[in-house]
Amino acid sequence: MTEITDLRSDTVTKPTPDMLQAMFAAQVGDDVYEEDPTINALEAKAAAMFGMEAGLFCPSGTMTNQIAIKVHTGPLTEVICDVTAHIYQYEGGGIASNSYASVALVNGERGKMTPEQVEGNIRPDNLHHPITKLVALENTCNKGGGSYYTIKEIAAISEVCKRNNLALHLDGARVFNALVASGENAKDYGLYFDSISVCLSKGLGAPVGSVLLGSKAFIKQSRRVRKVFGGGMRQAGYLAAACIYALDNNIERLKEDHRKAKLMEETLLQMNYVESVLPVETNIVIFKLNQKYNDAAFINTLAEQNIRVSAFGPQMIRFVTHLDVTDEMLEHTLKVLKSL
Amino acid sequence: MTEITDLRSDTVTKPTPDMLQAMFAAQVGDDVYEEDPTINALEAKAAAMFGMEAGLFCPSGTMTNQIAIKVHTGPLTEVICDVTAHIYQYEGGGIASNSYASVALVNGERGKMTPEQVEGNIRPDNLHHPITKLVALENTCNKGGGSYYTIKEIAAISEVCKRNNLALHLDGARVFNALVASGENAKDYGLYFDSISVCLSKGLGAPVGSVLLGSKAFIKQSRRVRKVFGGGMRQAGYLAAACIYALDNNIERLKEDHRKAKLMEETLLQMNYVESVLPVETNIVIFKLNQKYNDAAFINTLAEQNIRVSAFGPQMIRFVTHLDVTDEMLEHTLKVLKSL
Amino acid sequence: MTEITDLRSDTVTKPTPDMLQAMFAAQVGDDVYEEDPTINALEAKAAAMFGMEAGLFCPSGTMTNQIAIKVHTGPLTEVICDVTAHIYQYEGGGIASNSYASVALVNGERGKMTPEQVEGNIRPDNLHHPITKLVALENTCNKGGGSYYTIKEIAAISEVCKRNNLALHLDGARVFNALVASGENAKDYGLYFDSISVCLSKGLGAPVGSVLLGSKAFIKQSRRVRKVFGGGMRQAGYLAAACIYALDNNIERLKEDHRKAKLMEETLLQMNYVESVLPVETNIVIFKLNQKYNDAAFINTLAEQNIRVSAFGPQMIRFVTHLDVTDEMLEHTLKVLKSL
Amino acid sequence: MTEITDLRSDTVTKPTPDMLQAMFAAQVGDDVYEEDPTINALEAKAAAMFGMEAGLFCPSGTMTNQIAIKVHTGPLTEVICDVTAHIYQYEGGGIASNSYASVALVNGERGKMTPEQVEGNIRPDNLHHPITKLVALENTCNKGGGSYYTIKEIAAISEVCKRNNLALHLDGARVFNALVASGENAKDYGLYFDSISVCLSKGLGAPVGSVLLGSKAFIKQSRRVRKVFGGGMRQAGYLAAACIYALDNNIERLKEDHRKAKLMEETLLQMNYVESVLPVETNIVIFKLNQKYNDAAFINTLAEQNIRVSAFGPQMIRFVTHLDVTDEMLEHTLKVLKSL
Repeated sequence: MTEITDLRSDTVTKPTPDMLQAMFAAQVGDDVYEEDPTINALEAKAAAMFGMEAGLFCPSGTMTNQIAIKVHTGPLTEVICDVTAHIYQYEGGGIASNSYASVALVNGERGKMTPEQVEGNIRPDNLHHPITKLVALENTCNKGGGSYYTIKEIAAISEVCKRNNLALHLDGARVFNALVASGENAKDYGLYFDSISVCLSKGLGAPVGSVLLGSKAFIKQSRRVRKVFGGGMRQAGYLAAACIYALDNNIERLKEDHRKAKLMEETLLQMNYVESVLPVETNIVIFKLNQKYNDAAFINTLAEQNIRVSAFGPQMIRFVTHLDVTDEMLEHTLKVLKSL
Repeated sequence: MTEITDLRSDTVTKPTPDMLQAMFAAQVGDDVYEEDPTINALEAKAAAMFGMEAGLFCPSGTMTNQIAIKVHTGPLTEVICDVTAHIYQYEGGGIASNSYASVALVNGERGKMTPEQVEGNIRPDNLHHPITKLVALENTCNKGGGSYYTIKEIAAISEVCKRNNLALHLDGARVFNALVASGENAKDYGLYFDSISVCLSKGLGAPVGSVLLGSKAFIKQSRRVRKVFGGGMRQAGYLAAACIYALDNNIERLKEDHRKAKLMEETLLQMNYVESVLPVETNIVIFKLNQKYNDAAFINTLAEQNIRVSAFGPQMIRFVTHLDVTDEMLEHTLKVLKSL
Repeated sequence: MTEITDLRSDTVTKPTPDMLQAMFAAQVGDDVYEEDPTINALEAKAAAMFGMEAGLFCPSGTMTNQIAIKVHTGPLTEVICDVTAHIYQYEGGGIASNSYASVALVNGERGKMTPEQVEGNIRPDNLHHPITKLVALENTCNKGGGSYYTIKEIAAISEVCKRNNLALHLDGARVFNALVASGENAKDYGLYFDSISVCLSKGLGAPVGSVLLGSKAFIKQSRRVRKVFGGGMRQAGYLAAACIYALDNNIERLKEDHRKAKLMEETLLQMNYVESVLPVETNIVIFKLNQKYNDAAFINTLAEQNIRVSAFGPQMIRFVTHLDVTDEMLEHTLKVLKSL
Repeated sequence: MTEITDLRSDTVTKPTPDMLQAMFAAQVGDDVYEEDPTINALEAKAAAMFGMEAGLFCPSGTMTNQIAIKVHTGPLTEVICDVTAHIYQYEGGGIASNSYASVALVNGERGKMTPEQVEGNIRPDNLHHPITKLVALENTCNKGGGSYYTIKEIAAISEVCKRNNLALHLDGARVFNALVASGENAKDYGLYFDSISVCLSKGLGAPVGSVLLGSKAFIKQSRRVRKVFGGGMRQAGYLAAACIYALDNNIERLKEDHRKAKLMEETLLQMNYVESVLPVETNIVIFKLNQKYNDAAFINTLAEQNIRVSAFGPQMIRFVTHLDVTDEMLEHTLKVLKSL
């Protein structure tokens, strides 16, 4: 197989011809003046799906997360999140540099915090400590190997937040993977979260874009923060059109990505070079190599077979399945994995 | 005339069919992995035009400016700029909130600072003051009514900066208007500036995007800041393709915008409701209404004639000409202006 | 005269034996636990004097100012102050680095802004701009040559603030000089200001300390900010005792400092090496040397006569009178000034 | 016993008559001009003791720590420290709000990190992560129950820092307790640390003050940061004199505090209301109450016997011994502990 099987991330997908067609048929306008009809439509559509009042289109999920954190927190305050959270690990230290806020880091189970852990990390009212303001969940959990919170688990954490007057944010980089896997309803999320970042450029296959959801007042403040980060784009409706197409067409097919990830897990579990695999629940496969195998060498060996994957810490490897991983690529990958 | 003549800003332009075609045909990849060939080509092309080493594609000119300021400055330092500068007036207070830096504000002539003014605002070495680190020019000057610096003027300020070990940044939101008006060469800018923000979504007509230019080391740091602001996009080559098209096709035609602005100025100077007009040098017309005329009422009157313009301070009105202002629209505008 | 006449600043004073006696008789406790009785007494006394609810003792006037700014403002907001204000010019860029806030700089008359200037600098509600939150006055104005606002002038600015929902802060580094010169009542300040920084270590002669005044809620927040800046001291009642002594004994005698400054002004106005003198209203004398005289050389010449003074910009010199400037020192200074 | 036995912290001590006499006799000057001879002497003395070039006197240990962090780090960077560290837990979230820096939190053993833990938390060079810049130790470890690092352990961590180009800071709030307990030499610290915060107002008994130590260049930058936090005091030599006295007279006697703490530990270990006691190594005793005992009730019971102690987390109690805990108070405390 000479074509590249790119399992580094589900961000690498390229638009299908139909999505591309939708993009270039888009009506556009100047979104800084809030006049791009396609962006306005996407924001409304995403808000409605998740039971929220309003939405804001942004160039990335990092931006939607960082805006939400900046609106909810500020100097002398603190965010509670799992130590593996993308907002803490992979957003360049932005909680501190963008929002001047401290972090309380929870050692959850595969990225998932319990309500008790959340509550145990709320600071007492004492001027030696920052003031706890925000709890942030990630669903699915990237570093947890695609593990997910159920609505019931979310509701329990939300109850802690409401009782303690804390905001609850969702980093929904892969929220549709969680919803498809659990069979739950996006609309119920609106009952529990104060803000949701929904990414369209991962498993859903849009080239660019995330939408931040919340109350109208929250989105008004978020629009101001987007401006100061430089995230206000002009005629970006072309990108928003792809996102609308993705919401209309690419959600249910995530099951296909999950099926492929599961097959990879089954194969890996049988290999003697694998020490352990995080239980696969969605489209992410994280595994640990046996001590005698070196991660860089392993990645190179796969690359020679036109399979690209990511290092994910010492001895750790991550595969991510997505729209552009074909059945043929899956078979090739399984074959190569078995041959090593 | 029933079509809207939108003179609020040159940001409102929409892609022509040819530009759209170029977008549609673009090759794309994941730019966070630096694998989008169209973005890479745009960055290289813009850098070469301005005699700089490297470029970075961003969602807006506000982001390119804010990144440059953050890389050049930091806490306990200061930026010198004209009091009318976009970076100070229209970027949401980002110099302070993104870069934690102070500002020294110069009262220049229509947005243009002299080398003496710049030098006079450099702080002495004393711990009571912030440390002057950066000088930022804007070319053309938006609030100066589209006035521009010549290369000779830039060189003189650059000399002050080099002698005092200060970085020199250009907010080139409308740098091509300056270059077309002066007949000067973009490449010479590379001799004087440490960083340049070039906007493609104003007069050049691309839907979205600015490119930040500088040395390789500067762009490496800028890429990190772009990440933390959330400006790292995935398959954004569709947008970059429009920018490349704009650089190839839409620079020289800016003269046409300048001609139209000049005609508007000539008409306004004859009207008794106009107190004064800032001398028109490029595509911006800023004028002051006579005291008996109210700016909001004036804007409404034009709107009733399908002409949209911007308020620009008490009694002040701004018109901006661009790619989507046709000859017919010009005539309509002149006719309406004469009729008031 | 061989003793040094130190006119660099009124910060250089040393405690008199009586003040020193008061210091070492002080009862102290741990102020982080709010248990230092002398600090508590000082805070209550200063608050009562200025008609405010509560006070907070801090190591410096820079800290009281910076705390107030941080409580009143924050990221994406703006402070309006005169361009000469100490908070902008001499606090190391702290408005941006401590509070992440932007500044709107007013070109007042000798440091004093008019209500119209304040109102004209309030930002319209538009996400391109920061949000105006705070107006800060300085009384007396250091760079204005010790000029002062009257209560009537303060009331007019307060009216603008209240109407526009802005906080009003006073940098009262030399507020007692203003009160003594105007014959006005400190208590009336409480009607107009949301926070007041009162410095005790300038003209009043205490070795260290400023008190920040405001409502109970404001002081509660300020205590938190003081902690994070590291301004929470333990048994600092020794310093507070000197401040109480200063409030009890050293206010009225500021007239003596003003008289001496006035005599210096009269002499300087007759000297041909002086181009101009800012009208002396309190204890500061700022003058400009004639173009043929060099400021550094002038300062050295005085130093050779055991008189120390401050450079205050190109060709500008500042003298400050205070508790430790004796009549003999005054005569010596006048004699030297006449002899140059 | 009717006198209060205050075991809440070693910050509560009051100067002895001899210390007060030393304060009273101090020569002072304006330290913002670097002219206070007593402060200059203290800075030089402390620097010499720890084998460092220069020192800076500050109002608190929080300020010396926060200054050091701000000089060593900045936006988009990260500090590695133990999760129990004072700089993270008890300085109001200042790492983020003062320095805009992220934290990597290590789960050390009673507050002490191993070289492997430090090294394992250094970020790879990838723009998704902040850049690791600083490692901060605390010696003794407050939340670790007064545990301490030996020079050998410090040297091993210093080796990791040097190899990875990281600065190493010491929060020496109770560094003399560590030195007295280990019998090691302060001067050796200069070989390993880039900056040291030495607190004089804890076990050493001075009323106010910490000294920050480092290279001359580091202290120059620190002086600038001190200014912007508002930590520059004027005639603070009175406080510095107490610190000099403390260095001259109160170090060796810390053994006495350690002895008393050890006796408390022995008693507590025999009590059935105590679940566990952190091994006592210096002057801090942290223990956990049995599940059937409530911390607030326990603290109240002691308070009724005129013994004040601190809550230190759920079921956790902290005692700290110091200069003002007499033998009589010790006996009283032991008696009360046995009677509960």
